[in-house]
Amino acid sequence: MSGFPPSLERLIRQLTALPGIGRKSATRIALRIVGSTAAECRELAEAVLDAKRRTIPCSICGSLTEDDPCAICRDARRDATLLCVVEKASDVLAVERTGRFGGRYHVLGGVLSPLDGVGPEDLGIERLVDRVRSEGVAEIILALNPTTEGEATSLYLARRVSPVGVRVTRLASGLPVGGDLDLADERTLGAALEERRDL
Amino acid sequence: MSGFPPSLERLIRQLTALPGIGRKSATRIALRIVGSTAAECRELAEAVLDAKRRTIPCSICGSLTEDDPCAICRDARRDATLLCVVEKASDVLAVERTGRFGGRYHVLGGVLSPLDGVGPEDLGIERLVDRVRSEGVAEIILALNPTTEGEATSLYLARRVSPVGVRVTRLASGLPVGGDLDLADERTLGAALEERRDL
Repeated sequence: MSGFPPSLERLIRQLTALPGIGRKSATRIALRIVGSTAAECRELAEAVLDAKRRTIPCSICGSLTEDDPCAICRDARRDATLLCVVEKASDVLAVERTGRFGGRYHVLGGVLSPLDGVGPEDLGIERLVDRVRSEGVAEIILALNPTTEGEATSLYLARRVSPVGVRVTRLASGLPVGGDLDLADERTLGAALEERRDL
Repeated sequence: MSGFPPSLERLIRQLTALPGIGRKSATRIALRIVGSTAAECRELAEAVLDAKRRTIPCSICGSLTEDDPCAICRDARRDATLLCVVEKASDVLAVERTGRFGGRYHVLGGVLSPLDGVGPEDLGIERLVDRVRSEGVAEIILALNPTTEGEATSLYLARRVSPVGVRVTRLASGLPVGGDLDLADERTLGAALEERRDL
């Protein structure tokens, strides 16, 4: 049996290493790449190198930026007393898209996961506690994913910052807006009941 | 609202242009790329450029190769009287994987599609007819996809090569091996009935 040419196989292997891309999608993408113009291939390759070269983590909040500190950390109009802690850089964008948050961020870069060997030192939690202490933060909003590990990390963080004396909140759990009661899983519906609000 | 840094946005846009990748997957992939090492990024970028540079269509059969003509066309042990016509280069590999075909290939590069403006001249069908005539082909196996356009292209090809006097066959339609009668759609089951064989 004859396979694809070696250079094409190598590209397929590289693509398969990216998240969410299996062998079939990688083959489809590689064939599209090889079928496109040389200029288009150069653009794609340069976009990869350029993004890697220019994008750095903000030295204050850890989100991705080309200028350090990032635009949010530099913005004096943002409320420095409100600090939103998220798991990864793309979560910053998710919160920004709501248009409901005017404070600053702290990107943890993950959640505690003893099974994967991720401990407090890997997430730089000491640095977060220092920030809370030195920047005059009044409220920390823990916006981690509502998973077992996210919840455990939130509890750990709450305990760690409690000596500083700030208010610690977390995002509400409940029904998705526009969602259907019928389609909610029992844990989400249970949380919505438990966190019910007066009207 | 603040978005991703421009270089990251550009990478996301480039990735979104690839088949089967939406904005969400592109973002996930771009963040993974930016989070990997500079060496890994270089490897990916080089794989893209290298595959494009080295991989060319075989001047005889049209499948992808680094050396022209391709390994299959160069292989004197392959039966030159059997020609399998497929839609795209990856279909050659699909047929090769069966281990049941010892002839040669012809990659059309598409199917006839009047709505998309793809006519016989775009698929180089004249070149196929020439090959059949000059290479002493005895049987053409039409292995196009069993779609409306694939079937129409097969009928057109059969008519075009009939003056040459070769046998023209097409792949059998029927139940997938290991499949379930219950799960087959009515057209597949209908085809399986129509093409039933004596035991």
